[in-house]
Amino acid sequence: MSLGDMTNLVRMRWEPDAVGRLQQAAFELFSELGYEDTTVAEIAARAGLTKRTFFRHFSDKREVLFGGSEQLTELLVTGILEAPESATPMQAASAGLDACSQMFTERHGFAAQRAELIASSPELQERELIKLASMKAAATSALVQRGVPETTAELVAETAQTVFQVGFNRWIAQDDPAAFSLLMSEALEDLREVTAL
Amino acid sequence: MSLGDMTNLVRMRWEPDAVGRLQQAAFELFSELGYEDTTVAEIAARAGLTKRTFFRHFSDKREVLFGGSEQLTELLVTGILEAPESATPMQAASAGLDACSQMFTERHGFAAQRAELIASSPELQERELIKLASMKAAATSALVQRGVPETTAELVAETAQTVFQVGFNRWIAQDDPAAFSLLMSEALEDLREVTAL
Repeated sequence: MSLGDMTNLVRMRWEPDAVGRLQQAAFELFSELGYEDTTVAEIAARAGLTKRTFFRHFSDKREVLFGGSEQLTELLVTGILEAPESATPMQAASAGLDACSQMFTERHGFAAQRAELIASSPELQERELIKLASMKAAATSALVQRGVPETTAELVAETAQTVFQVGFNRWIAQDDPAAFSLLMSEALEDLREVTAL
Repeated sequence: MSLGDMTNLVRMRWEPDAVGRLQQAAFELFSELGYEDTTVAEIAARAGLTKRTFFRHFSDKREVLFGGSEQLTELLVTGILEAPESATPMQAASAGLDACSQMFTERHGFAAQRAELIASSPELQERELIKLASMKAAATSALVQRGVPETTAELVAETAQTVFQVGFNRWIAQDDPAAFSLLMSEALEDLREVTAL
């Protein structure tokens, strides 16, 4: 048995950070072979794990790219709930977005590559869109918890999503990995301008 | 052979309005049995057609609920392109939305039931979201064709989607089937208000 085989054996038994390794392996393989042409078996093999371990952590092949979404939702919701009492609904939503942006700032290169990968597959786009919709629903609930009326909360959450998406697209297209939060503020300003009478 | 059998036979041979009949059958069955518990074979049988005919018209079970989306995109794009030259980007986008709203106005009950059905299934939600994303992309291109810079076009198309979704949700929740366009105007006004400094 080679050292590599032994390492894999130990890994399979203990699976330390199985999630992280599967995500890393999937990301590499999707980039090398394309999303459609990568199998779950190949992802598991590259991570030195079994297919069964893969499915213990992810419901399907797509899900491996969306590991951070619960954490992101939590940052968003906490950011909204902890905004000063005097904050307007939109200011509270912006505080939530700023909290999220911290998760991205250190992963600019990864975020850009991941966005490219998602754009390459309708299946991945579908999953991305439903994650965003669920974040929007969570933001709406958080705003309602702050006492914002339901219809206003929905509108603000939708608008926050626009600010996030437009800011995000501008951010991954540029080289300054620190500017995400700033680009979202600019997107909101631009939004005010384009909707002005 | 009963008269019903004969009618089905003629239908199977000629398939007049196969698409419409499959949509109607799917809609009924999804409402009766639930989306998950309805099979394509059952939809085809209810429409007096074969499974093969179903797949000639729709790529999968979900797609049968999204038959009008190409037509809707065409209305949106034409509405944007044909807006007066003097229209601001947001006004052009609003003209596109108004054009779309005509397609809904006569189908208020159907639209409300369909929305309920979609909300009942994550699979259907995914498909709905990707259809909306593709409409947004079409709106962005139409705005760019009018000479709107790409980044502004994207922002305006996103905002138009917000106005559409918020207006739509308010519209299906109320009883006046004529008011969709009006509710979108109100949503845009509310959006201005919530984003004001």
